[in-house]
Amino acid sequence: MTARLLIHCPDQPGIVAAVSGFLTQQGCNIIHADQHATAKSGGEFFMRIEFERGRASGEILRGAFQAIGDQFSMDWSMSFDEVKRMAILVSKYDHCLLDLLWRQRRGELEVEIPLIISNHPDLQKDAEFFGVPFYHLPVTKGNKQEQEQRIHDLMVEHRVDFAVLARYMQILSPELVGKWPNKIINIHHSFLPAFIGARPYHSAFQRGVKIIGATAHYVTNDLDEGPIIEQDVVRVSHRQTIEELVRLGGDIERQVLARAVRWHVEERILVYENKTVVFY
Amino acid sequence: MTARLLIHCPDQPGIVAAVSGFLTQQGCNIIHADQHATAKSGGEFFMRIEFERGRASGEILRGAFQAIGDQFSMDWSMSFDEVKRMAILVSKYDHCLLDLLWRQRRGELEVEIPLIISNHPDLQKDAEFFGVPFYHLPVTKGNKQEQEQRIHDLMVEHRVDFAVLARYMQILSPELVGKWPNKIINIHHSFLPAFIGARPYHSAFQRGVKIIGATAHYVTNDLDEGPIIEQDVVRVSHRQTIEELVRLGGDIERQVLARAVRWHVEERILVYENKTVVFY
Amino acid sequence: MTARLLIHCPDQPGIVAAVSGFLTQQGCNIIHADQHATAKSGGEFFMRIEFERGRASGEILRGAFQAIGDQFSMDWSMSFDEVKRMAILVSKYDHCLLDLLWRQRRGELEVEIPLIISNHPDLQKDAEFFGVPFYHLPVTKGNKQEQEQRIHDLMVEHRVDFAVLARYMQILSPELVGKWPNKIINIHHSFLPAFIGARPYHSAFQRGVKIIGATAHYVTNDLDEGPIIEQDVVRVSHRQTIEELVRLGGDIERQVLARAVRWHVEERILVYENKTVVFY
Amino acid sequence: MTARLLIHCPDQPGIVAAVSGFLTQQGCNIIHADQHATAKSGGEFFMRIEFERGRASGEILRGAFQAIGDQFSMDWSMSFDEVKRMAILVSKYDHCLLDLLWRQRRGELEVEIPLIISNHPDLQKDAEFFGVPFYHLPVTKGNKQEQEQRIHDLMVEHRVDFAVLARYMQILSPELVGKWPNKIINIHHSFLPAFIGARPYHSAFQRGVKIIGATAHYVTNDLDEGPIIEQDVVRVSHRQTIEELVRLGGDIERQVLARAVRWHVEERILVYENKTVVFY
Repeated sequence: MTARLLIHCPDQPGIVAAVSGFLTQQGCNIIHADQHATAKSGGEFFMRIEFERGRASGEILRGAFQAIGDQFSMDWSMSFDEVKRMAILVSKYDHCLLDLLWRQRRGELEVEIPLIISNHPDLQKDAEFFGVPFYHLPVTKGNKQEQEQRIHDLMVEHRVDFAVLARYMQILSPELVGKWPNKIINIHHSFLPAFIGARPYHSAFQRGVKIIGATAHYVTNDLDEGPIIEQDVVRVSHRQTIEELVRLGGDIERQVLARAVRWHVEERILVYENKTVVFY
Repeated sequence: MTARLLIHCPDQPGIVAAVSGFLTQQGCNIIHADQHATAKSGGEFFMRIEFERGRASGEILRGAFQAIGDQFSMDWSMSFDEVKRMAILVSKYDHCLLDLLWRQRRGELEVEIPLIISNHPDLQKDAEFFGVPFYHLPVTKGNKQEQEQRIHDLMVEHRVDFAVLARYMQILSPELVGKWPNKIINIHHSFLPAFIGARPYHSAFQRGVKIIGATAHYVTNDLDEGPIIEQDVVRVSHRQTIEELVRLGGDIERQVLARAVRWHVEERILVYENKTVVFY
Repeated sequence: MTARLLIHCPDQPGIVAAVSGFLTQQGCNIIHADQHATAKSGGEFFMRIEFERGRASGEILRGAFQAIGDQFSMDWSMSFDEVKRMAILVSKYDHCLLDLLWRQRRGELEVEIPLIISNHPDLQKDAEFFGVPFYHLPVTKGNKQEQEQRIHDLMVEHRVDFAVLARYMQILSPELVGKWPNKIINIHHSFLPAFIGARPYHSAFQRGVKIIGATAHYVTNDLDEGPIIEQDVVRVSHRQTIEELVRLGGDIERQVLARAVRWHVEERILVYENKTVVFY
Repeated sequence: MTARLLIHCPDQPGIVAAVSGFLTQQGCNIIHADQHATAKSGGEFFMRIEFERGRASGEILRGAFQAIGDQFSMDWSMSFDEVKRMAILVSKYDHCLLDLLWRQRRGELEVEIPLIISNHPDLQKDAEFFGVPFYHLPVTKGNKQEQEQRIHDLMVEHRVDFAVLARYMQILSPELVGKWPNKIINIHHSFLPAFIGARPYHSAFQRGVKIIGATAHYVTNDLDEGPIIEQDVVRVSHRQTIEELVRLGGDIERQVLARAVRWHVEERILVYENKTVVFY
């Protein structure tokens, strides 16, 4: 794995020269660089650089880069080979959970999965097969607050970097969401902003759409309104029943979620104005 | 071209046998047949048959089939080689209009185009190049009603079977729409039901979606709520400006509209409960 | 599950009437029917009917239909609720195997899986987790013939209806293939007929294609030349390494194979002239 | 329009720093930059930069950059607002020609089209409607060489930068191709490398593929073997006749060709080892 530098700042001349000049002076080799400006001038500037560190340590590089970060008023971060730790929250549907576990096992997702949390016991055996601790935290009338507190504590205990809602059928409270900004990825089973909320496949069937989809987004306090990371669709017709929409949609859900998680793990996503810049 | 039989009735045993038996007795050869039932039993039944007429005339076949139609309480129609006549309503955007004119010229659309109506003069030269009469009916504060009356009269004079709104930027009144039920096809430049109404590309850009689309539907009195005939999408990213969304979307608009018009012309579309059954 | 009637015969007038008339007389209710003729007249005729049996037993229906089958020189078959039994052959790649096992577990594939056969031991634990007997039949210089004989015997012992090569990296001999005509489904990791043979992802990378794909087909004695059941593709660019083509392609492989297996299980596939008619 | 710098050289540390540093010193503002390295180290390096020129003239910038170009043994080019001039070669099919002419008219393609050349007179009226000179250069037994010489002379006379074969049904000789390396774009009506050569839709029909496609590539002396610029596909089934494959494929052809031409005009394409790097 390589070092990564993520930058977001007001656009202005000289950023690329300053950053690439710095890395060259520090004996770092730029492997890949992506950038995006929201306007020809005066907009926002985003950059992601993959580089190989030279002799200088991460600490030294971070310290030395601070001057450039300040000069251009950058919101920036530098990472070195840390493998992210991901919690998975799930309910009863197995398809998104299994897909993530498979991909992690076969090395497609460079991530550690220290725990799986569910409000139902159904998927415990699957978790055990993959050797991941499974915590059953049922939700009852009245215990929602403690249950969420327990989720948060477990994530902290296990030093989790981010969480994935793999069809977790509970709405998270502003308290919990507020503690993990842009750190919780949800998969919604519709092509947002179409069919926000519950039972989107039923709504899609009622409306008679010819294409259904799925959307991976960061969770905010506005239901299904968070920054969209990825979407994909599949063609349907009058022949499909609601059950078949659910089946076809499930395949899209796990593909879209897997891509979003991969991009998050590889730090390819920058968020601004409730939108995402994804460098892939 | 071949004869076509379209059927919609309550589902019940024996329909296929009765219909196919009838055609065989009449010396007709079934070339292609499609059917759809909305449930295993007790639902709606839809059928489309392409067949070659034997010696019996269209009149005789229609008369003879009436008994079966009544027996199964069918909503049915039979057509014989009539080429449909299509009016095109357009404003300033040329892409959907030109695409339809090209396809008709090269024989992709077996349809006659007796007239083009526009509230702007911009596309007159294009109409003339394809030899189609162009009527400029400007919309002014206060003349909307007469303008629509004129549109209707022109469509009647030219014995039009149906009309296409090829990015016609005026909302039709309930009066006009009511006279042409399931006979007016509109292309909406979004993936309905997402981004209903004006400036959907701007809304898509604001929401940061990763896929945009277009939707062809029959016009009803609920704006952008009519039965969806066809939809398609194209992938976008943070890199695209609104102008580029408009350009990319334009390609999808004309493709989707052309497919919808083709299916309408070939009588492949049945409408029920504000949805479509499309046999293709 | 419902009864199914599959028909292939020379096209001629009256087939649909005779077949649907027969089913109606027998008190069967046609739930769904598909047909295809390769020409307006004088071509091949294909038909698939799903129907609910009335009082008559399967034996009686089969016997009674024989007359119609003979009259139209049909190649036909009638099935009643039998659940097909599928063998899976695999080597070391797990993605196609796991996808099939999981879809069967969640009820997406109405099929029984009595055994998994592999020339490598790697996937035994996965087979055990899903409770499917796993047979390790290694291939050594010189034992190929006995190994294939053993495969065949195991398939017969377990009363297997068909087999799936889920990235089984051995070429089957004409002897074995000849015993299972149109009963062995292979997933090839390219968009056939492009990149026949070994290492298609490497060839695709060398050629610099912008789209890669996968193909599910019935196995014949011409390598990768069998009747194509299903194909799908994914967009790539200069950025993808061969390793990434393998990863992206793997997702397409399992999707395409799953669809092909589903259609085979539901008897939606008819083969003629090394091509398939797929009614879905 | 903005200035563009295209670079291809052996990968080595410091390239980005040197190039971006140069532009900053010259008072140029980098609007967008893309880069690609074929390996983590020791591979090929490609870069495309869009920038706004400061006070320095194009001549001065080119002269000053020479030192950096030499230092890193770059194959490089710098362009400033020159609008490219495109010749279109066509035979009888109109769809690709019309699509290019229309996109140029509406400003989607920032290109000048000084002439259209055809070996058939059929499309003269279309050329005239768009106000583009049309040259009818028939090919007869024996005149192929002079005809090609005339094509070349016309392209030179009209100061053409590149040519597009918009379904031009003649194979160009090595002599002509050799004079315009990576300057002639062809649209092939198949998903290369599948179905090289004539009548690919017939071959696709015979093989029974489930997806057909089109490929835009630079013309080399190996038929249909040139560097692939873009490809796209469309799903088909047993229902489509060859005529319908031709119709469906035509829509893909013009889309793929239009994208390839656009990228060539915007200098987004770099060629190496018979492959393309496309920065879009």
